[in-house]
Amino acid sequence: MFEKLALIGVGLIGASIALKARREGLARQIVGATRRQDTADTANRLGIVDSCGTDLAAACDGADLVIICTPVGACGDVTKIIAPRLKPGAILSEVGSVKQAVIRDMRPHVPAGVHYVPAHPIAGTEHSGPEAGFPELFEGRWAIVTPLPGEDRDAADKVAEFWRRCGSMVEFMTPEWHDKVLGIVSHLPHLIAYTIVGTADDMAGERRSEVIKFAAGGFRDFTRIAASDPTMWRDVFLNNRDAVLEILGRFQEDLFYLQRAIRWGEGDKLFELFNRTRAIRRALIDMKQA
Amino acid sequence: MFEKLALIGVGLIGASIALKARREGLARQIVGATRRQDTADTANRLGIVDSCGTDLAAACDGADLVIICTPVGACGDVTKIIAPRLKPGAILSEVGSVKQAVIRDMRPHVPAGVHYVPAHPIAGTEHSGPEAGFPELFEGRWAIVTPLPGEDRDAADKVAEFWRRCGSMVEFMTPEWHDKVLGIVSHLPHLIAYTIVGTADDMAGERRSEVIKFAAGGFRDFTRIAASDPTMWRDVFLNNRDAVLEILGRFQEDLFYLQRAIRWGEGDKLFELFNRTRAIRRALIDMKQA
Ligand SMILES: NC(=O)c1ccc[n+]([C@@H]2O[C@H](COP(=O)([O-])OP(=O)(O)OC[C@H]3O[C@@H](n4cnc5c(N)ncnc54)[C@H](OP(=O)(O)O)[C@@H]3O)[C@@H](O)[C@H]2O)c1
Ligand SMILES: NC(=O)c1ccc[n+]([C@@H]2O[C@H](COP(=O)([O-])OP(=O)(O)OC[C@H]3O[C@@H](n4cnc5c(N)ncnc54)[C@H](OP(=O)(O)O)[C@@H]3O)[C@@H](O)[C@H]2O)c1
Repeated sequence: MFEKLALIGVGLIGASIALKARREGLARQIVGATRRQDTADTANRLGIVDSCGTDLAAACDGADLVIICTPVGACGDVTKIIAPRLKPGAILSEVGSVKQAVIRDMRPHVPAGVHYVPAHPIAGTEHSGPEAGFPELFEGRWAIVTPLPGEDRDAADKVAEFWRRCGSMVEFMTPEWHDKVLGIVSHLPHLIAYTIVGTADDMAGERRSEVIKFAAGGFRDFTRIAASDPTMWRDVFLNNRDAVLEILGRFQEDLFYLQRAIRWGEGDKLFELFNRTRAIRRALIDMKQA
Repeated sequence: MFEKLALIGVGLIGASIALKARREGLARQIVGATRRQDTADTANRLGIVDSCGTDLAAACDGADLVIICTPVGACGDVTKIIAPRLKPGAILSEVGSVKQAVIRDMRPHVPAGVHYVPAHPIAGTEHSGPEAGFPELFEGRWAIVTPLPGEDRDAADKVAEFWRRCGSMVEFMTPEWHDKVLGIVSHLPHLIAYTIVGTADDMAGERRSEVIKFAAGGFRDFTRIAASDPTMWRDVFLNNRDAVLEILGRFQEDLFYLQRAIRWGEGDKLFELFNRTRAIRRALIDMKQA
């Protein structure tokens, strides 16, 4: 599909893309570039890309597909650094978990003649860094592409095809709707998981290890989510602020409603909700996303 | 270990106990009793117990170990029904997810000469009913025994040994501390999961299926927890009200703190928490409860 694929950032997502692209033969040459020499060394040692260095711009030389795989807060600066070396006609994409803010940060730096196609694979684990990458990460998962109005449609189709070849199903949507949907299915759940694990940790205090022992009661699923990369998630919340705050407001209302029902012993209100949420699980199982 | 084991309630927990007790030879005879004929028929058809009926009291005839495995709200009534048929010297136990309220409800009905030992296996799935049971459920998980002051210590030791033979590690604690710890590691996480799935469902509205598609972003773990049995969980919240409300109050405070940090762009506060919660995951992995 491509002559040269350049990945800026070779963490969980960048490394997984590299491994899958190599396995499927999606690019003749695959290079990486990352901020720290350490990370580059690891990527080279594991043979994740053909070569990995720390010169972000040099990695883009002659690349017909460049995918930025850094935390969303870094996407603007990275684009500024690599812009002079992007070849005319190249496709520039990224995998940021937030779309509107990343587009706002990147777009002013994208040179004329380079096609910028924002995308986001909905797949991940709580691990990070090159060692965390594996080629099957995207299989059977959705990838969202949010083409910019007025931009080249062929480029968007090519990025979509790239993700399909990585094993994903592709959906096109607007950046606005993306940020809202992801706020619901991903950002709010992560924020809540981080909070609950922090609250539990504070409450347990001295007796922390006693509490951790009994995590099988439900807590452990939250600890897994709350072990996700702090930098990545800080950037997500700062950059999808409006959607997250809106959803959080509704969540708080709903929680107060249940809190009040518990205080007043209104079992029917609890039962009604608990019964309704089961149906959603069933829908998810039916859609093979459980 | 026992001549006759009677299980009142043969859902996920009752059926799993029956299957494991049979496999390990923990009782010569294992009978079940349940409220609905339908459930009894299923238990008989699957051969989960030697026989299952709907006469709760009759099932206890001659049993030297009776374990009540119904939702916590039913434990008091069940005890009242079976009390006249409990044999002197028998051990009466239960598996309720809440201890203080269950003890309050059951204790007045326990006949003199019968040893009541409250217990709680910290193991479960989101499924319920006899079909959901499997013998490995308790393996490698903790079981908490909360012996009553002034009660026979031998009986408590025997219940502890029963759980060890079911594959569990056993911990003794007071009912008060049990309810507090479980409030943190189990009840709050379930309440939050139910709330978030409800909030997401309301927000998605017409576009629900679009949202469900992308559940791999974190949401799906919550939907699994929020698919747990509504009756069981309604009873848990109504019966561990004080502990749950206290923990919920702290959780709300912590969530408002993060909400404010997001609004004001205070990334360092977010990062600090997100970094701290990782350590808890590590502790859990070290304790093999991940
Ligand atoms: N993890 C998920 O579940 C998931 C899912 C979908 C999308 N995403 C998105 O994918 C992106 C990467 O996530 P990830 O999980 O792969 O993170 P990761 O494993 O932490 O990797 C991040 C990579 O970005 C590099 N990097 C960080 N800051 C940089 C900077 N200022 N300049 C250049 N490189 C920099 C890092 O290099 P050094 O190690 O050298 O610092 C590392 O190679 C994020 O935008 C995230 O929103 C993540
Ligand atoms: N699920 C978990 O994760 C978990 C973990 C540890 C402890 N527990 C505790 O274990 C207990 C049972 O939970 P479970 O998951 O096994 O529930 P379940 O699968 O829903 O089974 C409940 C059983 O109790 C019976 N029952 C309900 N109300 C009754 C009544 N009024 N009189 C007599 N029988 C009645 C049901 O009979 P019918 O079907 O005939 O109505 C069914 O056999 C609860 O106290 C729960 O707190 C649960």
